[in-house]
Amino acid sequence: MTSLADLPLRPDLVGRTAYGAPMLHVPVTLNTNENTHPVPDAVRADIVARVADALGTVNRYPDREFTELREALAAYLGHDLAPEQVWAANGSNEVLQHVFQAFGGPGRTLLTFPPTYSMYPNYAATSFTAVAEGRRDERFELSAETVVAEIRRTRPDVVVIAAPNNPTGTPVALDVLEAAYDAFDGVLVVDEAYAEFMPAEAPSALTLLPGRPRLAVARTMSKAFAFAGARLGYLAADPAFVDALRLVRLPYHLSAITQAAALGALAHAPEMMRMVEDIRQQRDRMAEGLRSLGYDVAPSWTNFLLFSGVDDPAALWRGLLERGVLVRDLAIPGALRVSAGTAAETDAFLDAMRALTPIGAAR
Amino acid sequence: MTSLADLPLRPDLVGRTAYGAPMLHVPVTLNTNENTHPVPDAVRADIVARVADALGTVNRYPDREFTELREALAAYLGHDLAPEQVWAANGSNEVLQHVFQAFGGPGRTLLTFPPTYSMYPNYAATSFTAVAEGRRDERFELSAETVVAEIRRTRPDVVVIAAPNNPTGTPVALDVLEAAYDAFDGVLVVDEAYAEFMPAEAPSALTLLPGRPRLAVARTMSKAFAFAGARLGYLAADPAFVDALRLVRLPYHLSAITQAAALGALAHAPEMMRMVEDIRQQRDRMAEGLRSLGYDVAPSWTNFLLFSGVDDPAALWRGLLERGVLVRDLAIPGALRVSAGTAAETDAFLDAMRALTPIGAAR
Repeated sequence: MTSLADLPLRPDLVGRTAYGAPMLHVPVTLNTNENTHPVPDAVRADIVARVADALGTVNRYPDREFTELREALAAYLGHDLAPEQVWAANGSNEVLQHVFQAFGGPGRTLLTFPPTYSMYPNYAATSFTAVAEGRRDERFELSAETVVAEIRRTRPDVVVIAAPNNPTGTPVALDVLEAAYDAFDGVLVVDEAYAEFMPAEAPSALTLLPGRPRLAVARTMSKAFAFAGARLGYLAADPAFVDALRLVRLPYHLSAITQAAALGALAHAPEMMRMVEDIRQQRDRMAEGLRSLGYDVAPSWTNFLLFSGVDDPAALWRGLLERGVLVRDLAIPGALRVSAGTAAETDAFLDAMRALTPIGAAR
Repeated sequence: MTSLADLPLRPDLVGRTAYGAPMLHVPVTLNTNENTHPVPDAVRADIVARVADALGTVNRYPDREFTELREALAAYLGHDLAPEQVWAANGSNEVLQHVFQAFGGPGRTLLTFPPTYSMYPNYAATSFTAVAEGRRDERFELSAETVVAEIRRTRPDVVVIAAPNNPTGTPVALDVLEAAYDAFDGVLVVDEAYAEFMPAEAPSALTLLPGRPRLAVARTMSKAFAFAGARLGYLAADPAFVDALRLVRLPYHLSAITQAAALGALAHAPEMMRMVEDIRQQRDRMAEGLRSLGYDVAPSWTNFLLFSGVDDPAALWRGLLERGVLVRDLAIPGALRVSAGTAAETDAFLDAMRALTPIGAAR
């Protein structure tokens, strides 16, 4: 039998293993920050009708420029964005890959600030972009001073800042992003995957786009639109920035079916945002429950919580799994991450936590 | 206004322009080798039902391993292939990108044999793989001798051979592929995008897979399955080869909707193959018509024809367009490419060619 070692693999891939967040079938799945609410039936019916229509011409290549979808995404984002400022791909991971392919590459460096989304280095690796790690302040925060110092120290070509951050859920102030942009000549990507879960009055990094052609704000339909299975990530930036991505994308990368499905979901944004409001409430109830059990919960502007003060995270993770609740152990000392779910899932999680806290909590 | 030149673009991309096959709206569109037959209504209804079902859990990430789809693709391909030998992505261009990312990269070289599919070098560029060009024999043919000589001369890490070839439509004998495989230690990809249009008795390169772990046979649902808009490319290879691709693919690259749609189409393979038979008949009628007008038509095992003996290809291309027929000018001296269409499209094309032949033909 042939093994990987017998094949002429690219040298830097030798010994690597493929991405593998566990895909366990558990009653209460709160490990990957999915939206645990299904798409409402009325929305689903509209999406199905649009997909059926798109299938009528599926023998033809899709609109390579996905014009209608860019118009709908620009209208959804607001902030006077034009369709020429919008880019989309099969998940925000492909959007980021396009950014790294256009502005990274061999001899160039990406700067990230761990703990943050753990896949950024993997996406950078597909374009041979090196990765530098910046430090954060206390309690996973990021100040303008620290960001600028780390950019000066590592001299990156691309900086990605998740705002709010994952896996901590913590916000990043706009003045930090402004300072980061001004501190170098490269490309700054603000990953706002969880933007819809921020407080209503909190400004998005989209407000920083005018006059900043090296800035991109990435979003996804996976979370707020309950569309993780449909794979639709996007970003907003200067039209020239978008032109650069057009140089590296594979022709026809967005299928006609994906375009139709995303248009269907976007047409129902108000319904989906009511669901987001419900998830925020469950998140806050979850945080309150965890705090009342004595855990330290990082302030969250997302659909998940990082809670610490856990004696033995691996044991607590197993205990929760035995009770049918799957959360995420990201190897952050004393901490676990849990996604906000429905009211019933929140109850199940908090019940299990109450039962397990003698083995879980430090105090 | 910011222009591309103001942005810190990767140096090797400076001055490039994005892929741009014309997307003109013309009554008879025969320029990109699409299947001009829509998916039959009964097949479409089944696909819609499967997509509707998948949308019920679209809030969750898709099956990262697309297990059911790999089973269906393996069953469709036959040749005793196991699901572990099958890989798929959003179009065969993404499949090829995975191959180049896994086995190419900086310092490595792809060998192609122009005139062939013009996008191979672009796909290689996204992984910084260099490109060497091999020569062909007379009339675009490829002999074992020539292939081996060109491999020895260029010392490639990856070789891609389109079989049958695009844009010429010409077949490649299996002994040529065997000789190519034996001539180097790298990875050989046989691109069988048009396999279903080959003569029924012609063997596929799939028959060469046993004992050849560095060989991959790429396919697509774009052509035979009339599924260009759905973006589903795939390949068959040794399980270790597939494992290598898993190292470079983005997690969840195939959406739940794409998986459901492809499964729906595959369930109706026999109906789709009857459509393929009809297209083959129109192709042969088109070839006969062109030959009777005095053109030289390359033997085709695909759904398109390359015809030469054209005095002024650009003028003939424009003349056809004025008559509502779009074909492809690939800058091959004295030649144009035309995709096979429906019976009515074939009539429209041949009528226009009869009218234009005084300006089109060399003899």
